[in-house]
Amino acid sequence: MNALQGHDIEDLSVGMSATFSKTITEADIVLFAGVSGDNNAVHINAEFAATTPFKGRIAHGMLSASVISAAIANKLPGPGTVYLSQSLQFRAPVRPGDTVRAVVTVTEVLHGKRRARLSTQCRVGELLVIDGEALVMTTARATPTPAP
Amino acid sequence: MNALQGHDIEDLSVGMSATFSKTITEADIVLFAGVSGDNNAVHINAEFAATTPFKGRIAHGMLSASVISAAIANKLPGPGTVYLSQSLQFRAPVRPGDTVRAVVTVTEVLHGKRRARLSTQCRVGELLVIDGEALVMTTARATPTPAP
Amino acid sequence: MNALQGHDIEDLSVGMSATFSKTITEADIVLFAGVSGDNNAVHINAEFAATTPFKGRIAHGMLSASVISAAIANKLPGPGTVYLSQSLQFRAPVRPGDTVRAVVTVTEVLHGKRRARLSTQCRVGELLVIDGEALVMTTARATPTPAP
Amino acid sequence: MNALQGHDIEDLSVGMSATFSKTITEADIVLFAGVSGDNNAVHINAEFAATTPFKGRIAHGMLSASVISAAIANKLPGPGTVYLSQSLQFRAPVRPGDTVRAVVTVTEVLHGKRRARLSTQCRVGELLVIDGEALVMTTARATPTPAP
Repeated sequence: MNALQGHDIEDLSVGMSATFSKTITEADIVLFAGVSGDNNAVHINAEFAATTPFKGRIAHGMLSASVISAAIANKLPGPGTVYLSQSLQFRAPVRPGDTVRAVVTVTEVLHGKRRARLSTQCRVGELLVIDGEALVMTTARATPTPAP
Repeated sequence: MNALQGHDIEDLSVGMSATFSKTITEADIVLFAGVSGDNNAVHINAEFAATTPFKGRIAHGMLSASVISAAIANKLPGPGTVYLSQSLQFRAPVRPGDTVRAVVTVTEVLHGKRRARLSTQCRVGELLVIDGEALVMTTARATPTPAP
Repeated sequence: MNALQGHDIEDLSVGMSATFSKTITEADIVLFAGVSGDNNAVHINAEFAATTPFKGRIAHGMLSASVISAAIANKLPGPGTVYLSQSLQFRAPVRPGDTVRAVVTVTEVLHGKRRARLSTQCRVGELLVIDGEALVMTTARATPTPAP
Repeated sequence: MNALQGHDIEDLSVGMSATFSKTITEADIVLFAGVSGDNNAVHINAEFAATTPFKGRIAHGMLSASVISAAIANKLPGPGTVYLSQSLQFRAPVRPGDTVRAVVTVTEVLHGKRRARLSTQCRVGELLVIDGEALVMTTARATPTPAP
């Protein structure tokens, strides 16, 4: 554990896993449209969205994906982590009211470079809605983190 | 053009490009922390952030990346596009007040599947802050889109 | 009345009362999670919250309590008031869509120190959800307030 | 630890302490005015605020106090905690840009009732800006918490 209560590279091993869950409400969709500038009609126009194959409004893919960011930042490796890369495959739509559960699992630990690879999946119930992989840089015991 | 004024697959060719830009304010960071649940101290704690190599608060990587989503949804291919996948390499930090310019460029057109591949880059001034690639599904002339 | 149309200490008497009401929406909960950093699962995860004794998401207690702050600042004593202390007993949960009515009532006037004590209650319908007490400092006729 | 990674009553002892810190930005003040309805001129009117003894805008007391809520919900006792009461003495103003550090410390553990009392202090640098006390109900090993 580092001074922020996050995991140092020495604390990580393949198979460690953590989850963070969040319900995606209409408010989240409106606010994400505001901060991103993504005003796709399928997200903000209920009448139009009803005419698409989705049969109603869906959340922005990057909004659901942002729950992965919370799982990494808050849980595993947790505070002190630096995000290096993320891949995302959008597999199924997320609708207002759905609860997105991000599961992050360590798949590789690169001690020398203080890097870890994680599989990152978002599910609604059992349905896989986003699949992907993240690469992060962590703290290490030899490189103390300042206290918060 | 489809009924939403987005590009059909027949309208796309390799090399076409579009940009969407947005200033990332403190308000965007606070709101993104709310919608994502990501409270990493480097985003919300100026005193802690000052002690890190970043020397101050930085925006969430997924917040800056969301400007790519806006460029794709609003410009190229534009309205009617379905997001299939996105890869992101976070190359440099974005700070409150920075204007993120997302540039998306068609690199491959797969007519049969109505899919296009795009390079997706975010810059602050000339500095590349996010590099990556997106795969999207577009409309086609043979498959009319309902009017918004 | 002071220049801001708030009450001077000379205007107050025991038993004076005022109310301020606000509906607590999903948007308020998302925004309060952002400004406070409080991501308790009972507020942001509908599936988890359904398994708790609350049987669903509830608002942050401090969010409902903030309506008291509005009653004091906007109504009684009103503009020009300085908040000295507040006690809060959280009696019952507030759910998205509930309208919180804050009722503040003067219980003591301390003229020499320009201070007043108020009982502060929040209700949803008739149900008492927050009980407590505030101590505030007001303006006085002898100490003119600048115009806004 | 309960299933949410929060502390059970059996995990608590007098003297345990945790902190959560957040910079209070202009955006936080605007958003808090929106969710609370508290539009006191000293928070939202820079010209008026400059004429007061505070010499400029200050944050809402309840906004700074909400960082205590985050420390309790996210850290100690952490996820699974129910907020029963909070007292707050507002000792000094918090200004836009200040970083509020909430420190919560267990002062009493009431095992039979699964309750704990905590001292709750907010500081900006070393300056005490809010003092107070919280009473919370925690989980216990005999009463399993559902997984998130």
